[in-house]
Amino acid sequence: MLATRVPTDLYLRVQQFYARQMQALDDLRFTEYAATFTEDGSFQHAPGVEPARGRAAILGVLEDFNRRFEDDPVQRRHWFNQIVLDEQEDGSLRSTVYTLVVHARPGVRQPEIAPSCVVHDVLEVTDGEVLTRSRLVTYDHLV
Amino acid sequence: MLATRVPTDLYLRVQQFYARQMQALDDLRFTEYAATFTEDGSFQHAPGVEPARGRAAILGVLEDFNRRFEDDPVQRRHWFNQIVLDEQEDGSLRSTVYTLVVHARPGVRQPEIAPSCVVHDVLEVTDGEVLTRSRLVTYDHLV
Amino acid sequence: MLATRVPTDLYLRVQQFYARQMQALDDLRFTEYAATFTEDGSFQHAPGVEPARGRAAILGVLEDFNRRFEDDPVQRRHWFNQIVLDEQEDGSLRSTVYTLVVHARPGVRQPEIAPSCVVHDVLEVTDGEVLTRSRLVTYDHLV
Repeated sequence: MLATRVPTDLYLRVQQFYARQMQALDDLRFTEYAATFTEDGSFQHAPGVEPARGRAAILGVLEDFNRRFEDDPVQRRHWFNQIVLDEQEDGSLRSTVYTLVVHARPGVRQPEIAPSCVVHDVLEVTDGEVLTRSRLVTYDHLV
Repeated sequence: MLATRVPTDLYLRVQQFYARQMQALDDLRFTEYAATFTEDGSFQHAPGVEPARGRAAILGVLEDFNRRFEDDPVQRRHWFNQIVLDEQEDGSLRSTVYTLVVHARPGVRQPEIAPSCVVHDVLEVTDGEVLTRSRLVTYDHLV
Repeated sequence: MLATRVPTDLYLRVQQFYARQMQALDDLRFTEYAATFTEDGSFQHAPGVEPARGRAAILGVLEDFNRRFEDDPVQRRHWFNQIVLDEQEDGSLRSTVYTLVVHARPGVRQPEIAPSCVVHDVLEVTDGEVLTRSRLVTYDHLV
């Protein structure tokens, strides 16, 4: 399995795609985040919950989730590491990525860094544009 | 905005540039760090402070800053993540990068990881060489 | 030193190599991890210990090390950052990489992130395949 490898150009496109996607999420530009999914894309932010399907539903999930921070001013930052891409037979990419979520609060120099997750994506690449077809997030402390 | 994208080769040069620049900083090779800025480059390590302008001034800021560690042996490591590059009209790159600073102290296995910052750079690329024209660091806990 | 730079394609291959290598390690696929070393590769997981030489010995070190987790269910994740590559005269690459080890335990949302290390590798690249010829891990809190 270590021998397979996607073209380097594609690997870089995915890196850039993730950087923009996560900065959109952390800047609360949720419409922009939703638009990084395919039109019928699915987003399951934890195992066991029902996946949101389609951009409108994904947008709804994000808005719901962020209501918990209404009285808790926090700057979240999603960090990614060790991106592994595997090409699938239909031309899509399976992507497996380490994730840590940094939570910084006003006046508190030391951010909370939790939880440790793994993002499991299927990515579509069309005309050089990367989109997320599906995303499942697993949590390392929930096993 | 998610559609714009710099050439992949350029994205990689910036990654390598940052890796060398930060290893120079963390190894206290300050002259080398200062040389990664353009001759008239500016470095503002926090909002509200006066930016240092030019390599000699940048070197001075670093030497001043590191005096605080004279009686506090610490190994700092600057981590970068989610680099977003946007080409500007004059050919320079606007770069927005998540940053965490790791502080390891002798005999203490668990490093302090703080603060969570964002580096806002303007980068110049000439003949394949990357230089920092300006750098502003914002802190997530100071809002 | 900041001027030297390996070809961008090579830099990306190394990134992908590390991502697969570390996911193999963290998924406890030790045979696969050992196979990412050259046949006579050496692995020294801390200064002062005797390096393991050859894939069988490397496999043995990993199995020994992981016995400490037999009664301590933990998901480890090795994070890498700021990869600096320098070409050596014999065509191999010297690689210097920041490392943090994330330890997530069942039911504990906040992972332990320790220690802060630096991985010092010599990498061989043959026909596009990357292998580790030698690895020494230094610890920032042990100086």
